[in-house]
Amino acid sequence: MIELVLGGARSGKSGYAAQRAEATRLPVVYLATAQALDEEMRERIAHHRAERPDAWRTVEEPLALAAALAREAAPGRCLLVDCLTLWLSNLLLAGREEEIEALIAALPALPGALILVSNEVGWGIVPENALARRFRDEQGRLNQRIAQLADRVTLIAAGLPLVLKGAPR
Amino acid sequence: MIELVLGGARSGKSGYAAQRAEATRLPVVYLATAQALDEEMRERIAHHRAERPDAWRTVEEPLALAAALAREAAPGRCLLVDCLTLWLSNLLLAGREEEIEALIAALPALPGALILVSNEVGWGIVPENALARRFRDEQGRLNQRIAQLADRVTLIAAGLPLVLKGAPR
Amino acid sequence: MIELVLGGARSGKSGYAAQRAEATRLPVVYLATAQALDEEMRERIAHHRAERPDAWRTVEEPLALAAALAREAAPGRCLLVDCLTLWLSNLLLAGREEEIEALIAALPALPGALILVSNEVGWGIVPENALARRFRDEQGRLNQRIAQLADRVTLIAAGLPLVLKGAPR
Repeated sequence: MIELVLGGARSGKSGYAAQRAEATRLPVVYLATAQALDEEMRERIAHHRAERPDAWRTVEEPLALAAALAREAAPGRCLLVDCLTLWLSNLLLAGREEEIEALIAALPALPGALILVSNEVGWGIVPENALARRFRDEQGRLNQRIAQLADRVTLIAAGLPLVLKGAPR
Repeated sequence: MIELVLGGARSGKSGYAAQRAEATRLPVVYLATAQALDEEMRERIAHHRAERPDAWRTVEEPLALAAALAREAAPGRCLLVDCLTLWLSNLLLAGREEEIEALIAALPALPGALILVSNEVGWGIVPENALARRFRDEQGRLNQRIAQLADRVTLIAAGLPLVLKGAPR
Repeated sequence: MIELVLGGARSGKSGYAAQRAEATRLPVVYLATAQALDEEMRERIAHHRAERPDAWRTVEEPLALAAALAREAAPGRCLLVDCLTLWLSNLLLAGREEEIEALIAALPALPGALILVSNEVGWGIVPENALARRFRDEQGRLNQRIAQLADRVTLIAAGLPLVLKGAPR
């Protein structure tokens, strides 16, 4: 069971994904992809951590996500990846784009429940910066590919879900 | 009865909110938060005013929105606030962030009908400007908090509504 | 029968529009509005072309869209316009805004099926660039006007449709 949770910045997508993870009633492993490279990121990471239930185990993996998922996934366990956007940004900065194919290849075979959080970044004016244009192309393509593999896809605005694919509840 | 109307720039959210206000068949007070600080704003304000029914009363309040709502709200009356995004921008510029808590505290007790218009601003590439990043964080948080209190929330694109919460019609 | 397909960059809107065109089982004429002014555009155009079925006929028209539609439309034929956003950008650059009114006037009388693809560009922070602000205003207004005339309007995210107007399938 793969679920993809999409939304803009501060749309409440992480909170919604956390509710969905809790609703599985399975033990949850939280897979954090953020890297604390500056003060602003450190604050965002601390803010997200404070919102997570104490019972969850946290695993940090900025790059080798497919390997981390293969290691952690198990029947009767829920993995929550937050988020694919920071992970994709890490990959492009590190020149590790091959990790995208590794993730797509790994997803169908994973046991247990998997919830993935990702950003919508292409709904504004074309960015003047060529790297930003490339990033939004890669992000859009990644979201489409994962949505195809997912059993359920939701788009979040103001903390509320619109179901793009799968069961309404 | 609180309704939140969300959407991007020129999505038709103001027009949709106006239809919703008319549909209440109550007398409408239009609460304008815009400040005419330059020629472009003056034109946008005039454009919006020309689209409003003559029967509506307009109240301008760029900052102290909670107080204005408490003053104007009444059973059998509909207040339409357009929009929370300009209001939030005014607050941050004036250093009056405490008005956010005042609004959240005031909303549940207001009599009559209330329709609030707000922008979605977080669906693009991360802005390079730190103030812009802060603004989209604050806007996203505000939209989430109001959506939680609202009876009905819609997301508008091309003038058409997607219902996020509450009754389809 | 007019269908409008909306979405962000790399949302899968072109792919969805192509599926909808195929589903009509009519011969398809693809109306391309892109101009290959630089290498990046040439690559995007080639990428889109490689994804199209060989049986489709392609007509290129960057500006005079209403005339091209009037010339090509026929009962038992499906026209697919991809996309209105590049076309609008071409119009503003060429000072040919009158083509917008020509398109709106032409649409209701066209025979056959017509599918139009357009971008959502107003869901980010207000652009600092005045031309970008004007573009997103014009794009938002155009999408609203076409949505009013359309029989079906969808909003695409990650390749999946949300129906804003018309039949679910």
